[in-house]
Order: sequence, then structure tokens, then C-alpha cells
Amino acid sequence: MQFKNFNRLAFLGVFSLLLFSGCGNQGSKEGANGALNSSAAEKVYVAPGEKDDYYAFLSGGYSGNLTVYGLPSGRMFKEIPVFSQFPTSGYGYSEETKPLLNTSHGFIPWDDLHHPDISQTNGELDGRWVFVNGNNTPRIARVSLATFETEEIIEIPNSAGNHSSSFITENTEYVVAGTRFSVPVPQRDMPINEYKGNFKGALTFIGVEPEHGHMEIKFQVIMPGFNYDLSHPGRGKSHGWFFFSTYNTEEASSLLEVNASQNDKDFIAAINWKKIEEYIANGGGKMVPAEYAHNVYDESTHMATSTMIDEVLTVDPTEIPGAVYLLPTPKSPHGCDVDPSGQYIIGSGKLSADITVHSFDKMIAAIENEKFDGDAYGIPILNFEEVLAGTVKSGGLGPLHTEFDSDGNAYTTFFISSEVVKWKLGSWEVVDRKPTFYSVGHLMIPGGNSRKPFGNYLVAMNKITKDRYLPTGPEMEHSAQIYDISGEKMELIYDFPTHGEPHYAAGCPAELLAPKSRKIYRLDENKHPYAAIGPEGAKVERNGKEVHVYMSTIRSHFTPDNIEGIKVGDKVYFHITNLEQDFDVPHGFSMIGQNTSEILVMPGQTKTTVWEPKKPGVWPFYCTDFCSALHQEMQGYVRVSPAGSKVELKWSVGE
Amino acid sequence: MQFKNFNRLAFLGVFSLLLFSGCGNQGSKEGANGALNSSAAEKVYVAPGEKDDYYAFLSGGYSGNLTVYGLPSGRMFKEIPVFSQFPTSGYGYSEETKPLLNTSHGFIPWDDLHHPDISQTNGELDGRWVFVNGNNTPRIARVSLATFETEEIIEIPNSAGNHSSSFITENTEYVVAGTRFSVPVPQRDMPINEYKGNFKGALTFIGVEPEHGHMEIKFQVIMPGFNYDLSHPGRGKSHGWFFFSTYNTEEASSLLEVNASQNDKDFIAAINWKKIEEYIANGGGKMVPAEYAHNVYDESTHMATSTMIDEVLTVDPTEIPGAVYLLPTPKSPHGCDVDPSGQYIIGSGKLSADITVHSFDKMIAAIENEKFDGDAYGIPILNFEEVLAGTVKSGGLGPLHTEFDSDGNAYTTFFISSEVVKWKLGSWEVVDRKPTFYSVGHLMIPGGNSRKPFGNYLVAMNKITKDRYLPTGPEMEHSAQIYDISGEKMELIYDFPTHGEPHYAAGCPAELLAPKSRKIYRLDENKHPYAAIGPEGAKVERNGKEVHVYMSTIRSHFTPDNIEGIKVGDKVYFHITNLEQDFDVPHGFSMIGQNTSEILVMPGQTKTTVWEPKKPGVWPFYCTDFCSALHQEMQGYVRVSPAGSKVELKWSVGE
Repeated sequence: MQFKNFNRLAFLGVFSLLLFSGCGNQGSKEGANGALNSSAAEKVYVAPGEKDDYYAFLSGGYSGNLTVYGLPSGRMFKEIPVFSQFPTSGYGYSEETKPLLNTSHGFIPWDDLHHPDISQTNGELDGRWVFVNGNNTPRIARVSLATFETEEIIEIPNSAGNHSSSFITENTEYVVAGTRFSVPVPQRDMPINEYKGNFKGALTFIGVEPEHGHMEIKFQVIMPGFNYDLSHPGRGKSHGWFFFSTYNTEEASSLLEVNASQNDKDFIAAINWKKIEEYIANGGGKMVPAEYAHNVYDESTHMATSTMIDEVLTVDPTEIPGAVYLLPTPKSPHGCDVDPSGQYIIGSGKLSADITVHSFDKMIAAIENEKFDGDAYGIPILNFEEVLAGTVKSGGLGPLHTEFDSDGNAYTTFFISSEVVKWKLGSWEVVDRKPTFYSVGHLMIPGGNSRKPFGNYLVAMNKITKDRYLPTGPEMEHSAQIYDISGEKMELIYDFPTHGEPHYAAGCPAELLAPKSRKIYRLDENKHPYAAIGPEGAKVERNGKEVHVYMSTIRSHFTPDNIEGIKVGDKVYFHITNLEQDFDVPHGFSMIGQNTSEILVMPGQTKTTVWEPKKPGVWPFYCTDFCSALHQEMQGYVRVSPAGSKVELKWSVGE
Repeated sequence: MQFKNFNRLAFLGVFSLLLFSGCGNQGSKEGANGALNSSAAEKVYVAPGEKDDYYAFLSGGYSGNLTVYGLPSGRMFKEIPVFSQFPTSGYGYSEETKPLLNTSHGFIPWDDLHHPDISQTNGELDGRWVFVNGNNTPRIARVSLATFETEEIIEIPNSAGNHSSSFITENTEYVVAGTRFSVPVPQRDMPINEYKGNFKGALTFIGVEPEHGHMEIKFQVIMPGFNYDLSHPGRGKSHGWFFFSTYNTEEASSLLEVNASQNDKDFIAAINWKKIEEYIANGGGKMVPAEYAHNVYDESTHMATSTMIDEVLTVDPTEIPGAVYLLPTPKSPHGCDVDPSGQYIIGSGKLSADITVHSFDKMIAAIENEKFDGDAYGIPILNFEEVLAGTVKSGGLGPLHTEFDSDGNAYTTFFISSEVVKWKLGSWEVVDRKPTFYSVGHLMIPGGNSRKPFGNYLVAMNKITKDRYLPTGPEMEHSAQIYDISGEKMELIYDFPTHGEPHYAAGCPAELLAPKSRKIYRLDENKHPYAAIGPEGAKVERNGKEVHVYMSTIRSHFTPDNIEGIKVGDKVYFHITNLEQDFDVPHGFSMIGQNTSEILVMPGQTKTTVWEPKKPGVWPFYCTDFCSALHQEMQGYVRVSPAGSKVELKWSVGE
């Protein structure tokens, strides 16, 4: 492992041996020049003024958002709103961000965010974007790793429970979205018990434009009506393939806990997307009607737009020879993970004790030699023994997910036996196992799903919390645990609560992102049509019952801060421009009685919030983010007159 | 200090000397029996399996919510939704919780939550409830410390920017809410520049019913049109009084950063609420029309209701001899804090270098001897020198807020010079000062605003974060810092990011809350009218276009999980009852394309979410909280037919 024996990765990109953090008197019997200080306290402690070594992006699950943590401290640095309204900043409430949450079903204030994946170049993390999926109303979002803001969301048609997503190919050619629940494709009114053979599973390949990251659905592979659970790209020699785990190959549509656990083996579906590209380039595929939203945030206007798209290209896998094969995998596989070399495809049958490892080379040979065991709806099933590389006899129960270090080791979570098992690729030998508290789902090693895993740390994301923290009533946060994996044996060093339910995470070294992190928005690049660039741009305009307030803010006043001539029945748009150009000087804005959230406005940014006053009176607004010694003085009043009043529109500051 | 020299307060209520946490090889040159281990890492480290010593309830500020942290680890255990919609659990989206966010302005999905205060008995924390204020659309909420859920929210009429709130008297007789912005009382259409003399500031006393904590506005004191910033109750000898800091005694209505900083001294208003009680008991006060919401959550029906109230009792302070006095305090005081003995009232003039301490005894003597310096709108102004106990010559700049330990020390934050200053009550001598990073607002010592301060720790809540953590784009979390205050000198031991913007916090020992923390809701106490208590209670009922689904959940299926006969144009209410009766086994529910959030349903609980299907088809729902090895199988389908279809309503599971 690249950073083995290094306890800290220095913030500014220089690796240095900082075994002991900067407090005065840690004390160690082994001394500063001896072996690693094995104090777990010292290992996770990041002293005031120091920085964490790694970023960890944890999915929020049912929070709909993405949370940013530091490792090894386990401290949460930010919650990035993606699929859910976020009253804290006004995301999903401000006029500029509401279009991001538009779908073919209308505005949706929530989703279930599962699997972050950081963009890659040549199979290594490049730190440009992180892609995440919304399961419930299928969507993929792209988050900028310069601004840590959601920049784009695309809806996925013909899909439901978008779970085997949002994983990317090794040059970020595609981000992939696979349906969890099969549905009628296209959707239609039909009896549920006619599911079998009629429902379909769409696997969607979304192209990512290399410069700005803009997403476009390139094609959907319309697969049999299984449940598609997780997926991973091939890499290295297997680049060009994508692997999806399936369950419910029984095609049950009720009481799945019984009815979808009948088959001894389900499948990992291997998709040769380069073959499909060729097929499409030669005119293959069928454009079909669809309805899905594509929402893009424009950083220069500070606004999102939502566009409805009305068709999508589908391909039938049985019409493309050599494009899709099924690898039998025991039983109800959840995780589907590819090792850094691209040779091994690991299937974790969640009702199994063992871990099944397929060989990419053997798969290619089996395809060439037509080692088939029949087919499923016309898709060849490869012979299990012909593709099997090996089986890890773990002794655990309920394997779910595997990541890798750079020394040829794999780490698999076991939900039922509640542990992480470390084993060797190739020999399949178990070299260590440690309990988790409790019932681990996924795990994350920074870079551990790329060609180049980093880091000393493994983060286990547990499903059950119970007594790990002080109790907080019936509802507890979920819990993660950090293991030091720099040695032969894993060492549990810390527990930290997580916000929402992390299903997966993506981690990377701090230096990949920190130097290019955006600090402000430049006022001279602000193209918001209602921006007040300077107090001289401040004004109030009436257009019928619509009133637009172009308001600027700077420590410690609003311009204007007195407005008269507003009437009951008006719809008042406050467009707030923060004139600050220093880092970490946001201003907030809120108006009493607004039926929406505040807006938190970053330096150089413009945001809009709406108020529909219901009662005559003199109503205050104020800055909601403590910005200076005179923050409490940062306020203003709006006079609201009855509908039909003759009070003239006027505005001022300091008069 | 009670716990001085104790590094940990043991979880189960027994104090024990646990200087070294449970990892194998911490190492200390001083040894386990020597002096305190001064390693900051060891001090803040809570090893896996151990517990924090204290709960800390930090206000979320513009998040609208209350966050629960552990000390000394700085880990966030829960975000309790109070004034803001919370997509994570469905708070403010579910049918049961939407009424909690109702106001006289309609449904409001957000507020600005500032000051938590834990209920007290005899001046000591009793750990029953925590009260918090919403600033923007004035409200007070009560949060249960058994369930960690919001149980009640009351709106405050005649008020704006409800900032000098929500502090409680020493037997929780009252929770107090003071207006920050003065407004016309009652509200009316009038020119803003006629503010002076016409706008008023309402200080509201809300009675708290002792058994269940239900709130009721008892009276509002209609004060001059100043800004009321913070407040604290008297205690011990000063019990029966309440103290409010004021600024903008200039009564400016525009550009307050200049116009409200003119007077050399503003006031602390001393309110003798026992006198006002007598006055009211004798028929005093005036019932006036008002409009405000009172929202109560009923734990047995699992539902909130919102009631509009149409009048409020106001009192004119000039009509109640001896009820209200003004104590001159330099300059633009923010914090207004009373020491544990009740003798000293500390005013922190935020544009001052010094801290002003008033004496309660001297105040009483000055009142008796009529040492007045005129009056403000008929309210006597006491002579400054006659009430002054002393001045702390701090050498800092911008004092904001003071808390106390039990050894007669006070700790004051300084925003401008960015530090905490420790000084002695009585001698006014500065004994220590430590920098904060950066620009501290308030601070918290567990119990530090009660008669009985606890603990070794001081938490500083800083307004500026800048470079304290790995950068996350233009928007950063705010930052808190923990100081060990068990010794003569304060020691900075840790930085942790905070979620939202904490303005104040309340802390208490773990043992006060942990043993009585609620684990589940009992099914046999569930009185929700749409509960399905057991799978046999599951059913689907149509009432015109309204469909009610009584659905039960248990690992790992829904009953029913197949529903047909739903039509486009229907409004489908899913009432989900979680039949689990084990701790930490929630189930979630979400339906594709819903224009609302998921619901997270605790064991024994019933929650309701609405779906208005827009398109015919077969649409899935699933459990959003990973609940068992077969969680991925926990799903179902609803068949939606076109409006007017003849498909019969039916439902089933496993058929």
C-alpha cells in the first residue's frame, strides 16, 4: 500500500511522517522514533489547527443528501444537498434551485441517495466530480468537487428503484444506472401477477461530456425482469465491460423475502458496452418515447433550468451478439466488485457463507469456447465452473460488499455475522477478520474501487447502532467505524455516527481536492439577471402584482433596508446579491411569515426567495448568518399596505 | 467544580476515575496513577464501546433544527427537526407532522432556531424538556428529552425576530420569548419612519404546565420600541425577576449598524414577573385580539393538531408599579447572564472592551431608594453607579456572552478579539484567556446557566471557520471548540464542525437523560386512527377519490405488498405501522414519483404519506431503511389504472 506505515498524509501534498500530532505531551512508551504509536486515540486525533488526511463522501441514504467527512477524525464537514430540500441553505426552496428537483412526476423534494463514485481518468480518481444516484424516483446527480454543490440531475426513464448505480467507467466515459425493480417497459396498466416475462429491467448508460461533465443518456439495455442490485465497471484488461449483480431471477412480484430466495444461483450480468457502442454506431437500437427531466445548474447565472426529454434509445441485448452474458453466482448476490487489476469480479451472495470470485480471463475464454449452460430470455448463461476463479471460504455469513487495498488484499463485509474479513486475491485465503458493531453493510477504502487504492483506513458503514452512542430516543443515527489497515491485522480505532444512512462512500486524499476548492463566486462573473452588483444596482420594480427587489448585502446592512408600497396580494421576489469577496462571509436573508426557507448567499452569489404578504403591517427581515460585530443590526423593514392602497413604491437605506 | 479532576463521568451514573480509555497501549510518561494525562487526544477520545460524558444540545440556527452532540468527543448523535422540514424522517412532510409547522401565516417549512434551554426544577436541570425559539416567524418549541422529538410549538403574536428567547425560570414556571425587532402593536399599515415612539417590543411569558409541559401564553409586557436581544431569569434571591438586554434604544429603523450604535449606554430591562402575576390576579391587563397557532403532538395518536388562538393578554408596564426597571448598560449589550447565586447580572456590551456586572442587591436597594435617572416612556431608569457591582477590565474587545462554573468563575466570549476570558466573580479579576478560532459567539458549560454548573468542558461556538477543516467549497460548516476547564487555566483540546449555525447550547450529564431515553413506541398504546396493528389490520379502503392504505411492516415485508384498483386522479394515503417492538429497527416507506419525502417509521409507530399517481402503470414501493438481510426484498407494487377504469380494488401479500 502506497502510504503504508504513514500515519498522516500531509495537507499540502507532501507526505511526511507525522506519527504524533501537535499537542505537547502525548507520551509513548515506544517513543517517537520507534514503532507506530498504537494508541487509537492518537491515530484518530486531528489537533486544532491540523487537517484530516482524507475526504470521505458518504451517501446519506434516506436523507437524500451527500455528507462529507474527514478521515481519520470522522468529523462531518458538510452536508451537500442533492435530492432533498435543504432548509439550511434554501436548496430546493430558492427560485434558482427548485428546477433541480423537477421530474416527469413534477417537483419531488426528496430521494434516497445510495452510491457516490468519484470521476476517474485512466482508472484513477481525478477529483473533478462525484456522481450519486437517487433510488426512489430514478435519477443520477453530478456534484462538483470544486464548489461541493449539485450541478446536474438527470432522470432515468423505464427504471424503478435505481439501485445498481451510479458507478463510472475508468475514464468517466459513462455513469451507469441500473433498475432495481423491474417494471413494464414502457409503463402500462397491467396485472401485477403477470410480471414474469413481461416486466423488464433497464440498464442505462449515461455519457459524461469530458470538459463540463454534462450527462446525456446514450442507451438503455432492456434486460429480463430481474432485480439489478449493484454494479461495477471493468478496468484495465476488463475496461469496456460493466458487471451488474442480479437477484429475484425467480421474477417474483410479492413476498420476495421468500419468493426471491428460491434459486440456488442468481447472476452477475456482464455487459460489453464497447460492443453496444459499435452496434449503435452501425444504426442499431430503437428510439422509443419516454419522458424524463434533465436539470442543469449554470454557475454563471447561478440558476438551474429543467428540460423535459421525450425519447430514449433502447437496445435489445439478444440482438447484439457478444454484448451480454450471465455469470451464475450464489445466492442473491448484493455486491459486485472488480479488483484493481480488472481480473476478478467478486460476487457477494448475501444468503451465502462464501464469496464467489469470477475470473475475467476465464469469462473471455468461456465465451470464446461457448461454455454455455442455456440462456435466460435469449441471453447466454456461462457455465459456473468455467468462469469461477475461486471461492473464499470465509466462515462468515452474509457477504455484501468488497473493496481492495493496493497490496492484493480484499476486504469483504458480512452483514449477518457482523464483521469485515480480509483475504488475499488469488489464494482466497482469509488473513484477518474483525467484528463490526453492528451488522455492516458496505465499506470504503479511499480509492478502493479504482485502479489505485490509497490510504490506511477502512470505513465500515453499519446498519444497526443500538448502544454505540448515548441514546437519543427511538431514532438513532446510523454508525460507521474506522479501521487502521496499514498493518497485517486490521485495528478498530473509532466509531462515528453518520447522518442519514450511508450505503456506500467514496474517499480520496485531501490534496486531490483541497488546493482547488472554490472559495468565493466572483462578482465580475455573476450573470444572474436580477443581481445587484453593488449598492447602486439595488432597486425595486413592480410588474403588476409581481415585485422584484434587487437587494445587495455587505457587512452589515442591506440595500435597500426600507421598502414601502408593497400590497397584500403581491408576490415579492427578493433577489439577494452578496457583495462580499472574502472567503467564508456568507449572508443570509429571511422575511417573517414567508412560506419557504431562508436563503444562505455565498460571497459573489445571487439567490432569490419569494414572499407573499398576507396582512398589512410593517414586517422585518434580517441576516440569518452571524457575519460581523454588527450582525444583529443587519435588518430592515417592509411596509405592507392593503390591496388597492395608493402607497407609492419606494425604497431606501439610511434615510 | 463538582467534577474537577475527573476526566470522565461514567455512563451509568457512577463517577469513576477513567483517565485512560479502553485501548490497549496508550502509554503515558506520567502513568495511570500520576497527574492528569494531559494528552488532548486522550481527553477527547471516546473509544469504541465507550460513551460520552455529556449531552450537548446545539441550536442549528438557520438549519431550524436542534443538534445533539456528545462531549468530549464532539460527535453529532442526532439532528432533531423542530422548525424545518426534514426529508430524512418525513418531519414536516408526513400528514401527522405537517400541523406542527402551521402558523398564522400558513405553513412555514423553516425557521431560525437560536437558544435551547433545558427545563429546571429548583434551579437545577431536570432533563424533562428542552425549549427552543424560532426567530423569524416567532415561535417557541418544546422538545421531549425522552423521545428527542418535537412535541409542541406555539407562535408568539405581536413579536418579530423572536431573539431574547427561549429561557426558562428556575422551576420552569415560564419560558420567555422577547421580540428582537419592535413592530407596530397591533400590526398596521404605517410609514416606517414613524417608528420612534410608535413601534413596540413585546416580552412574552409562556406558562408551562408542570406535568406534560404544555405551553400557554400568560401575558405579554408591551415595552418601548427597542430591540430586545437576550435574556436570563433571576435565580435564588433574584427568582421572580427576568432580565432582558436591549439595543437600538435610539429607535432607528434604517442602517442600524450606524444609527443604533449612537448611545453610550443601552439598557438591561428587569422584569418582576411575580409583580405582574399579582397585577393580573387582581384583574390587571388587557385582552387584545391576536392570531397565533398552537400546535401539539399527541404521542398516543402519533399526530399533531394545530389550533388558532384569537386573543392575548397584554400588560402596560407603566401601569404596574414596581414591575419594570431599566439598568443602563454600555454599549449595545448582547448577552445578559445571571450567575448561579442569582446575585450578579452580567451585561456584555458588544461594542465595548469591558464587561459590566450589575448587582441584584444594589438594584433592589436602588429601587427602594428611588435612585432613578429619569425614565424611558414612563419606565424608571436606575442610576448606573447605584446598580453597578463591578466592571471586568478584560483587555478584550466585543464581549458577547458569559457562563459560569461552580467555583465562582465566569467565562466570557469576545467576538472581536476572538477569545474566551475567564474571570472571578466578585473580584472581577481576569485569571485566564485563550484564543478561539475564529470569532466566538456564545459558549456553553453544561449546567452553566443554572444554579448547578457541571463538567470539565467549555464549548465555544465560533462564527468564522475559514481554514479549520478541509475546505468544502464556498460554504463551510461553522465550528465549535472544546476547552478543558478542570484546571486553573483553560486548555483547548478539540475542534469540531457544527451543523447549521449554533447560537447557543445547553448541556447536561449523560446520566440525566440516558436511563430514561425512550426505545420504542408500544404497539398496544398506539391510538392512531389508521394504524394496522398486526397484518390482520391491513386493508385498503376507498372513499371517493381518497384511498386509505392501512399497511403494516415487519422484517422483511409489507402487508399488503400488491395493490390494484388505484386510478389516476386518486389521492392515496399510505398509513404505515411498524410492528417491530425492538429498539433500533425502523422501517422506511417511499413510493416512486411521490411529491413528498419518505417516512421513517419507528417501532410501534404509525406515519402517513400521500401519493397522487399521475400515470397508469405498475409502480413500486420499498423500505428505505436497511432492516435485515432480506431488506432488499422488502418491496411491493401498486397497479395504477386510468381514471374511470373498472379494475377492482384489491390487495394481497404472497399470492
